[in-house]
Amino acid sequence: MSKQKIESAIAKLRELSSTPVKGDCLLTWERSTEELQAVLLVAEVLGELWRNGTSARVFDGGLAVSIFRDQSTRTRFSYASAASLLGLDVQELDEKKSQIAHGETVRETATMISFLTEAIGIRDDMFLGEGHKYMAEVASALDESFAEGVLPQRPAVINLQCDLDHPTQTLSDLLHLKRSFGSLDALRGKKLAMTWAYSPSYGKPLSVPQGVIGLMTRFGMDVVLAHPPGYDLVPETLETAGTFARESGGSFTHGHDMAEAFRDADIVYPKSWAPLNVMEQRTQLLKDGDATKLDALEQQCLAQNAKHKNWECNRKLMSLTRAGKALYMHCLPADITDVSCESGEVAADVFDRARLTTYRQAGHKPFIIAAMIMLSRFDSPSTVLTRLVENDARRYAE
Amino acid sequence: MSKQKIESAIAKLRELSSTPVKGDCLLTWERSTEELQAVLLVAEVLGELWRNGTSARVFDGGLAVSIFRDQSTRTRFSYASAASLLGLDVQELDEKKSQIAHGETVRETATMISFLTEAIGIRDDMFLGEGHKYMAEVASALDESFAEGVLPQRPAVINLQCDLDHPTQTLSDLLHLKRSFGSLDALRGKKLAMTWAYSPSYGKPLSVPQGVIGLMTRFGMDVVLAHPPGYDLVPETLETAGTFARESGGSFTHGHDMAEAFRDADIVYPKSWAPLNVMEQRTQLLKDGDATKLDALEQQCLAQNAKHKNWECNRKLMSLTRAGKALYMHCLPADITDVSCESGEVAADVFDRARLTTYRQAGHKPFIIAAMIMLSRFDSPSTVLTRLVENDARRYAE
Amino acid sequence: MSKQKIESAIAKLRELSSTPVKGDCLLTWERSTEELQAVLLVAEVLGELWRNGTSARVFDGGLAVSIFRDQSTRTRFSYASAASLLGLDVQELDEKKSQIAHGETVRETATMISFLTEAIGIRDDMFLGEGHKYMAEVASALDESFAEGVLPQRPAVINLQCDLDHPTQTLSDLLHLKRSFGSLDALRGKKLAMTWAYSPSYGKPLSVPQGVIGLMTRFGMDVVLAHPPGYDLVPETLETAGTFARESGGSFTHGHDMAEAFRDADIVYPKSWAPLNVMEQRTQLLKDGDATKLDALEQQCLAQNAKHKNWECNRKLMSLTRAGKALYMHCLPADITDVSCESGEVAADVFDRARLTTYRQAGHKPFIIAAMIMLSRFDSPSTVLTRLVENDARRYAE
Repeated sequence: MSKQKIESAIAKLRELSSTPVKGDCLLTWERSTEELQAVLLVAEVLGELWRNGTSARVFDGGLAVSIFRDQSTRTRFSYASAASLLGLDVQELDEKKSQIAHGETVRETATMISFLTEAIGIRDDMFLGEGHKYMAEVASALDESFAEGVLPQRPAVINLQCDLDHPTQTLSDLLHLKRSFGSLDALRGKKLAMTWAYSPSYGKPLSVPQGVIGLMTRFGMDVVLAHPPGYDLVPETLETAGTFARESGGSFTHGHDMAEAFRDADIVYPKSWAPLNVMEQRTQLLKDGDATKLDALEQQCLAQNAKHKNWECNRKLMSLTRAGKALYMHCLPADITDVSCESGEVAADVFDRARLTTYRQAGHKPFIIAAMIMLSRFDSPSTVLTRLVENDARRYAE
Repeated sequence: MSKQKIESAIAKLRELSSTPVKGDCLLTWERSTEELQAVLLVAEVLGELWRNGTSARVFDGGLAVSIFRDQSTRTRFSYASAASLLGLDVQELDEKKSQIAHGETVRETATMISFLTEAIGIRDDMFLGEGHKYMAEVASALDESFAEGVLPQRPAVINLQCDLDHPTQTLSDLLHLKRSFGSLDALRGKKLAMTWAYSPSYGKPLSVPQGVIGLMTRFGMDVVLAHPPGYDLVPETLETAGTFARESGGSFTHGHDMAEAFRDADIVYPKSWAPLNVMEQRTQLLKDGDATKLDALEQQCLAQNAKHKNWECNRKLMSLTRAGKALYMHCLPADITDVSCESGEVAADVFDRARLTTYRQAGHKPFIIAAMIMLSRFDSPSTVLTRLVENDARRYAE
Repeated sequence: MSKQKIESAIAKLRELSSTPVKGDCLLTWERSTEELQAVLLVAEVLGELWRNGTSARVFDGGLAVSIFRDQSTRTRFSYASAASLLGLDVQELDEKKSQIAHGETVRETATMISFLTEAIGIRDDMFLGEGHKYMAEVASALDESFAEGVLPQRPAVINLQCDLDHPTQTLSDLLHLKRSFGSLDALRGKKLAMTWAYSPSYGKPLSVPQGVIGLMTRFGMDVVLAHPPGYDLVPETLETAGTFARESGGSFTHGHDMAEAFRDADIVYPKSWAPLNVMEQRTQLLKDGDATKLDALEQQCLAQNAKHKNWECNRKLMSLTRAGKALYMHCLPADITDVSCESGEVAADVFDRARLTTYRQAGHKPFIIAAMIMLSRFDSPSTVLTRLVENDARRYAE
């Protein structure tokens, strides 16, 4: 992306018919398509500024708080990178080191960590029906404290994965598609297969497939969801996908045949997840703290998974795709047969050919997160970006 | 606070008869009243600069080390916020991840973590007779290493709660009172009830009540300490409070009747703490690592607490206060009846009315900590603040 | 160091016959002597800039990632200090909080944490034959991802201690010697005794003695390695030391007599380490996760150690050194007899006399690490340093 292309991206950002409204992007389907396009444009500009050595530190101090209720490498580092890019200092809320257990309410904690905070990133994907609820509760508490003058600013709330959606992942995926196919318009009519894949693991969240079908259907793609019987997603997310497909002139179909999904696909996204009913039981057992039943459930789920080892993205399946060359996507880490496990989501040779491409896919995430923070915190991101380009403060000595 | 008021606060800071002497504020009672007033003034200016979007990054790099020997949310985030505000990078000393256990002395560690360090914040409130001693030992080691040229600078030591005092909390409390009543002078003759309150928890430190009576008695208030028999504080802190009350023209009384304490009070601060003799036994058992006896002590203490469930700040008690409208204070999190526990320090309706006010009380802490660091590290904080106002570097892009 | 001396150091840096080649200093013996001299010169200039209050923030954001696979205080804080000095934000990769266990490859993780990363510091010293291998694998993955355009920059990889070498320690040691004796040339002909010493601990890495003999032999010193029979080091490191000694006109001898090693020594470095064969067995048992055998090995090793309690650096041994006044060195923390243990590496009176000197020795490490990052990331560090001096941006308000 040359300087000219940066300027063109900023111009497009300025032109987006509905000016991006400030607010959190907790679920992509709650935001307008223009708003999502704005996230991509800002992310592209920020990425290019980084590569050009232009500083994008739009803050001079202030915290970017992170709350990880589940493990994370990629997203943790993406969030920290976004914070550093913008000039914020990461402070992690480690619930084990805090007094939160001591009867503190969510709304109290939300305020207590926010007096000098510009962004709060949250991962909460373990409990079905809980993650999004928690984030919405935090957001609402911040609204109150800001309205009442308790907080001098309303921090952006960034969903770093909940039980329903994983917007920083799926918008990175969308930016990857935009870059791979040339534009969002070029995605129109492309076939994307979001499929289950076998993994010898258990309890993987549903948010990626849900997020992918709920986002990609907005851009005129033919989105196919395929999984073995029983591996259903939260029903509302399928309805959303259907509605978006109708509105965008694309399509959304749902089946149980991996090969059928792969046939003539331009893009394949084979990824494991846990069956909805297992996740529901697991959520209850985690709440109850019933370790014995949790173990039993895990064994049962692993046994169920093992019946579907043929759901592996291998050379034979790939050969069914458009010219045998579909774009392979994965949010990483992938379970790779003979590399990370005996039998996994993807064959080693297929993954190896796509490996660097999946790294590129992941590389958008820091900039997507930074874009979300900017869009939430600034009235006119296009003006801010223009000034960054003009000032061209260097981000390293020369 | 307008720009004019900022300038007036800086002018007052300049006028304070005794120029604030550089040094740590480990115990408020070791510092002059003028020095404490200086902390409030600097905190107020820093708070206003933040709200006005003026950068207060007086450092361009350097560490703000934190050592938490007990859990913390509020103080941890306040410290991180203060560091970010001033341009320092937080580095936590996690004693579990370090080699400190391997026979390293306190004075060695103090130096090893300080080569590029501007502030060291310490929470050490678990062991009676230990916390303050440890901080003083760190401070003395830093003095030596600075005097000997081993350290290029003498980091500020910030007491983030010890066994005796909790200065960042009580000075936030004092700033809250100054703001609520209009000035420090307006506090003269006001009645403040620092009372014990029931909580189904165990081992809460004594530092807040000790710190409150040791600070508020310096400003001409009528301070009443009330608790059930046996819930004594460290005797020296009561003596200090008595002396200060005499000197300031206020009063300090000590009793065992919550209603009496609340009667006509302008301010109430009902908060649980552990009995002194339990804390003494606990300190010994923790040192001995005697888990069985610790459990027994906890049970015995909880049983003893349970005899005083009527020490709850409820509507009836509040109605006894000045016009039934005393300012309710708490350092948070409060144990709220029917919210965080069956029976607690405060009734839900009383807390709910005061909730946002307690959040404001907490919101001063980041600025108090930042003020302490500035007063410790700069010869003329008023000059530094004046330049910040004049330069008006923006803390976010516009 | 005056401003004049800073300029002279920069001039020397510019003159170094072989311009420092960008690259990681994973093992000092893989880099040219000129490159190591460059590290010292940059570190000296950075140290002096810090003491003069000149900002050295050559980055405006970006991450300094740290990976600690073993405990650390000194090095952790040195790394964080170096990052803060240069304007980078530390982000620790805590392998317990990450998904790395989930079958992710080293090369994938290396890339995933590096999209906006300028440096990766790694401590991996527990497994003989593994630590250096891991670092080299990370470095090679970064090379690939940078070459392929996946990463916009190639982060510096900083060895914060591996199984073979501990370059940030030994280069700090070398800078300490340069400062103590006046110059690197002045070290020529000086006798340095790197000896084992008794410690009631187990499993201490071999990297410090290996690194010391592999570095100090390059500067014309007479390096003597002494340890009880059985406490061998990795054989290749002895070969390297021998070769360097021949090339530099110094000498390298190897024996089993502490007194002989101390006789007429100018510098003594008495320090405990584990026997090579114990480390080999331990590596295997750690891999196997065999806790029972690990316990047995520890007991056996401690018993073996206990036979050598007379390997203590005491007044009598010190009296054998040059004029009884050899420079005592230790990487800290030292096991001090009657202070941190009943019987240890050094007698209390010997350590106490040298204590502040060992602190100075440690104080170079933040600047050594910062110098390594700068040399790895900038084409012309001398130009960058010159501009820092000329601009003289202040690192704190005045």
